[in-house]
Amino acid sequence: MATKPEGLPEMEYRFLGRSGLKVSALSLGGWLTYGGHIDEDGTFACMKAAYDAGCNFFDCAETYADGESEVAMGKAIKKYGWKRNDIVISTKIYWGGAFGNNRANNVGLSRKHIIEGLDLALARLQLDYVDLVYAHRPDRQTPIEETVRAFNHVINQGKAFYWGTSDWNADEIAQAWRYADKLGLIGPVMEQPEYNMLKREKVELEFAHLYREVGLGLTTFSPLRLGILSGKYRDGIPEGSRLAQTQVEFIAGLWKRTGKEEFEAIAAQVRKLEPIAESLGVSQSVLALAWVLSNKNVSSAIMGASKPEQVFENIQAIATYKKLTPEILAEIDTVLNNKPPAIVERF
Amino acid sequence: MATKPEGLPEMEYRFLGRSGLKVSALSLGGWLTYGGHIDEDGTFACMKAAYDAGCNFFDCAETYADGESEVAMGKAIKKYGWKRNDIVISTKIYWGGAFGNNRANNVGLSRKHIIEGLDLALARLQLDYVDLVYAHRPDRQTPIEETVRAFNHVINQGKAFYWGTSDWNADEIAQAWRYADKLGLIGPVMEQPEYNMLKREKVELEFAHLYREVGLGLTTFSPLRLGILSGKYRDGIPEGSRLAQTQVEFIAGLWKRTGKEEFEAIAAQVRKLEPIAESLGVSQSVLALAWVLSNKNVSSAIMGASKPEQVFENIQAIATYKKLTPEILAEIDTVLNNKPPAIVERF
Amino acid sequence: MATKPEGLPEMEYRFLGRSGLKVSALSLGGWLTYGGHIDEDGTFACMKAAYDAGCNFFDCAETYADGESEVAMGKAIKKYGWKRNDIVISTKIYWGGAFGNNRANNVGLSRKHIIEGLDLALARLQLDYVDLVYAHRPDRQTPIEETVRAFNHVINQGKAFYWGTSDWNADEIAQAWRYADKLGLIGPVMEQPEYNMLKREKVELEFAHLYREVGLGLTTFSPLRLGILSGKYRDGIPEGSRLAQTQVEFIAGLWKRTGKEEFEAIAAQVRKLEPIAESLGVSQSVLALAWVLSNKNVSSAIMGASKPEQVFENIQAIATYKKLTPEILAEIDTVLNNKPPAIVERF
Amino acid sequence: MATKPEGLPEMEYRFLGRSGLKVSALSLGGWLTYGGHIDEDGTFACMKAAYDAGCNFFDCAETYADGESEVAMGKAIKKYGWKRNDIVISTKIYWGGAFGNNRANNVGLSRKHIIEGLDLALARLQLDYVDLVYAHRPDRQTPIEETVRAFNHVINQGKAFYWGTSDWNADEIAQAWRYADKLGLIGPVMEQPEYNMLKREKVELEFAHLYREVGLGLTTFSPLRLGILSGKYRDGIPEGSRLAQTQVEFIAGLWKRTGKEEFEAIAAQVRKLEPIAESLGVSQSVLALAWVLSNKNVSSAIMGASKPEQVFENIQAIATYKKLTPEILAEIDTVLNNKPPAIVERF
Repeated sequence: MATKPEGLPEMEYRFLGRSGLKVSALSLGGWLTYGGHIDEDGTFACMKAAYDAGCNFFDCAETYADGESEVAMGKAIKKYGWKRNDIVISTKIYWGGAFGNNRANNVGLSRKHIIEGLDLALARLQLDYVDLVYAHRPDRQTPIEETVRAFNHVINQGKAFYWGTSDWNADEIAQAWRYADKLGLIGPVMEQPEYNMLKREKVELEFAHLYREVGLGLTTFSPLRLGILSGKYRDGIPEGSRLAQTQVEFIAGLWKRTGKEEFEAIAAQVRKLEPIAESLGVSQSVLALAWVLSNKNVSSAIMGASKPEQVFENIQAIATYKKLTPEILAEIDTVLNNKPPAIVERF
Repeated sequence: MATKPEGLPEMEYRFLGRSGLKVSALSLGGWLTYGGHIDEDGTFACMKAAYDAGCNFFDCAETYADGESEVAMGKAIKKYGWKRNDIVISTKIYWGGAFGNNRANNVGLSRKHIIEGLDLALARLQLDYVDLVYAHRPDRQTPIEETVRAFNHVINQGKAFYWGTSDWNADEIAQAWRYADKLGLIGPVMEQPEYNMLKREKVELEFAHLYREVGLGLTTFSPLRLGILSGKYRDGIPEGSRLAQTQVEFIAGLWKRTGKEEFEAIAAQVRKLEPIAESLGVSQSVLALAWVLSNKNVSSAIMGASKPEQVFENIQAIATYKKLTPEILAEIDTVLNNKPPAIVERF
Repeated sequence: MATKPEGLPEMEYRFLGRSGLKVSALSLGGWLTYGGHIDEDGTFACMKAAYDAGCNFFDCAETYADGESEVAMGKAIKKYGWKRNDIVISTKIYWGGAFGNNRANNVGLSRKHIIEGLDLALARLQLDYVDLVYAHRPDRQTPIEETVRAFNHVINQGKAFYWGTSDWNADEIAQAWRYADKLGLIGPVMEQPEYNMLKREKVELEFAHLYREVGLGLTTFSPLRLGILSGKYRDGIPEGSRLAQTQVEFIAGLWKRTGKEEFEAIAAQVRKLEPIAESLGVSQSVLALAWVLSNKNVSSAIMGASKPEQVFENIQAIATYKKLTPEILAEIDTVLNNKPPAIVERF
Repeated sequence: MATKPEGLPEMEYRFLGRSGLKVSALSLGGWLTYGGHIDEDGTFACMKAAYDAGCNFFDCAETYADGESEVAMGKAIKKYGWKRNDIVISTKIYWGGAFGNNRANNVGLSRKHIIEGLDLALARLQLDYVDLVYAHRPDRQTPIEETVRAFNHVINQGKAFYWGTSDWNADEIAQAWRYADKLGLIGPVMEQPEYNMLKREKVELEFAHLYREVGLGLTTFSPLRLGILSGKYRDGIPEGSRLAQTQVEFIAGLWKRTGKEEFEAIAAQVRKLEPIAESLGVSQSVLALAWVLSNKNVSSAIMGASKPEQVFENIQAIATYKKLTPEILAEIDTVLNNKPPAIVERF
């Protein structure tokens, strides 16, 4: 098993938004991997590598690998005997299982599914509580007030410490705070959006007021935009790569939407980032992760990894992001050409 | 045991009023049947038929068959191993047992009876919680605030997800919301009234503002008005019919109130519905159920059934109500001659 | 000018519902009369007679005689130099003037019309404030919260002391209290319904819970049901009677709705009340008024009068209602055959 | 002076969002015209034409023509003796005057500027109150709570009936409601965004949840996108046109941003709308206005006009929008190719 290499930068811990909770700036996520195409031993190895490197936050969801991701993570926690108070565990409630007859309430953000879904997730994780529970998507058919009340209920029962959202719009998060404030309840502390060099608008523009108004924390996913920012598709899509996997059909869907030509334009941009990574002495993946960390509104960047070595390499980003001077960031902005306009404070 | 026939229409799931919970448009109720004049095997057979047909909602009450209805339903859930998150179970609290000395607190909507009554109901059902708990009648001697607080208490304890009312007046429901809003508590989400072709005023007129003001959902009972709308009393009341049973004395009371002559007038109307049912190719019972479903404020129509075949027949209403064109509905209104006046928006 | 006769019973003052305001049990209303078919001198004479007999409450509305009723009442108050603190003046806002282009906001219960309508009414009345302001009808297109806020606004500006409703449903009054309580505002203290021997259900049945829940006061109108209860139509409708007036077209409408036959049935009932009135030594009009006053939920019965003598005769009801024993009231119920069912306190 | 032509369609009045106020579906705005490049007589003529055509809503702002727009509108109201309760007048507070030394508080949404700015606007308008007062832009340096409180202050003082926003983001509007609800205050009822065939995203996508959550009403501006949609720039930009005016420098800015090539692409689209307008028998301007009105979330489309004839022509849109069938709207969408994606209710 891979052991922690010498000279790894020391982990940084950031507050989760305006809350008092600290999460490692880099954390490990279970999406598409643990419980899925990575076997149990692979899961254990990656989680141990992350833990050894100082990651305290492990991110999951009831829908990842149909619950198997939670099962695998739960086993790892047991196996290594990590103290519950040393780690931060999350799960997300929305998609509770296969659809069909009699399954009408296994999806969405009703009081029933939030309470039952979290109970089932805790059983799979073999835990009494998670630290963070997310609404995995907005549910525009359930009143936001019902959702706010249900997350407060599970917090009051001791089954979670904080609640947040994933892929919600800014105004929906504000509405959740509206009901929370009106009722004297706890509002959503964090949001989990996609954030990377190729997808910036939501985090840098749409959410801008929320950092000030509600102290929103971010736990971002997809730092490499499905691997694209690692540079491995610079010359096209190789066989066996993640983008080519049949199991991830929706990525194929994304692929089709994006289109071959647009992908080539993106690949060209990514190639222009090569010399910047080189000059910093890191891989493009590390540069991409470091770039995410350079945004102070990011509480934690959730990384994927299928091997411990990847985990250790990613940790370099902790050192690298501190080397991203305003000049380098401006150079990257020029390459990307997607920097959202600045927020006007007063017209 | 009867198995689900070919070609049964697919179940429809509707939101319970403005809540995020989904209930099957047709559901099975335990009143006067399960635990009562239907034995355990009959209960099991009907519940299985309903579940197989996509019904996810089973309605009970502490008073149905003096608690035996809950016992029988609880056994069925165990027997078939249905997942708790796939089904929606309700009970109703008001009449907690025989009256007499020392039973003063076994009736009504005091904090004591709501909490104790629900605990006993859960024990009979062998469940940790119900999805819905109802105030089975208004109690004008207990302050509504006490009742609102008590139902919130059991929800906060995790013993129910939503609460509602049964046979309350519109203004009493509005008062319950008044206390709920004032105190930041959860208001009654649903009401369970009688609703059928012969009894329309409460649902179509009296409750009209509540759909707009509080998003009230309805789970209606007595779609056949004690069987009258099935057409089986078209030529009088046969021996052995439900209306003739001694155990249902209050029906006899109803009978007296209604009077022989008025009953004959109703029977004449019901006979005029025969050709409409025929032209749709369904029984009068299915027409009556379909008519209830055609009201979009109905979240679920609770049906009774003493045999699985009845359940399967009733399911036809899911297909039939979609065939009720405005013209057919107007024709039915002409026959019934009881359509409530339209609500004036501005005078 | 008619002067107050000897031996008139002393006026009784009742609290307006649960409020601290006292209103005379009999009061004078401007509907269809003052500013309309009664000239200024006639208005003055009736108002003086009522005042002299101890009536302190004069009821008006922006729509009565298109505002002329307020103008005439305002002149009377000036003319007689009544002290402002001795009298209780009301008006009602809803119908602010002729409809048509550019008049879209002169009707209903929007903030704009309530504030502007009351300002215009006060100008017509030559007053700085009214004691009571009513929402003359429900407006189901304006949010109740907006209406509650607007009435509180005019109260806060010192332009009215209390607000209430007229011809609202029980559940709409409860909703108004819901918003008032939620926002810490003043709710509607009184409702003005029609109430008389021939129209009882709203006051005796529908509003029953409101007396207990919000302490609703009633200022009732139409004690004689458009004169029918005076007995003057016992043999048909004479020329020149109020029912025959062309100006009151909507009464003709009512007439048509009721139908000749139904009217005859009513007239027969009214004839059966004759001996009861006789045995009490009063006219049928006085009996009808006294019957209204015998309901303790009535704060004030608003009477109409086109001559001072009528006013003085009506005052007899103050003495007569005290003679209505349970036996006599039961006899009247038998004649009327319209007593609403008793409210069930606990089932 | 131009008089109202025969056969003009009758004006339609719509509720301002979920409020009880009714505004004419077409209304007249003072931006860039009245008090500015249109002289007083021109202002009077246009306002009279609009009033005669049934427009009841006139829109202004403290910054339009540096306050001269309010002065001119105020004079017109006086001149024609319109009744205050027949018309709806708005103004907007944000830019209170030239910048520079000692003017630090004449801009933005502080309590000081809102109260002082509105007082000065009312003096210019010669009115005691406006119906609507807007925050003309968001001010991200003033706490939203302060702004919400200040607008409630002027409403409580009777200086405005409703308040709203202009060019705010969806989440900022939601935040304003959050503070309003928390404090029991009145939230922003309406928003004034640009909305036309060429600018749809904010109204159709970004604000989508607000219609449901807070009942937001829209008073939209720029139906012709600076005249572009009238078709008058189909062959380029003529001398003397509004786009060429030096006084509207920011339009030049827009021009630069858009770029010659993009403008040509837009002009090509606009040319494709010609046959649709022709088939409906109206000008392209009327088609553009009618298209705005076909969105049911638009309470009022504010039009500009420098001549009465233009006002009368625009009124045709009231008849035209009713002819926009789903097929024609789909055809327009195909030409424009900018229809925002549908909102996902449940993922």
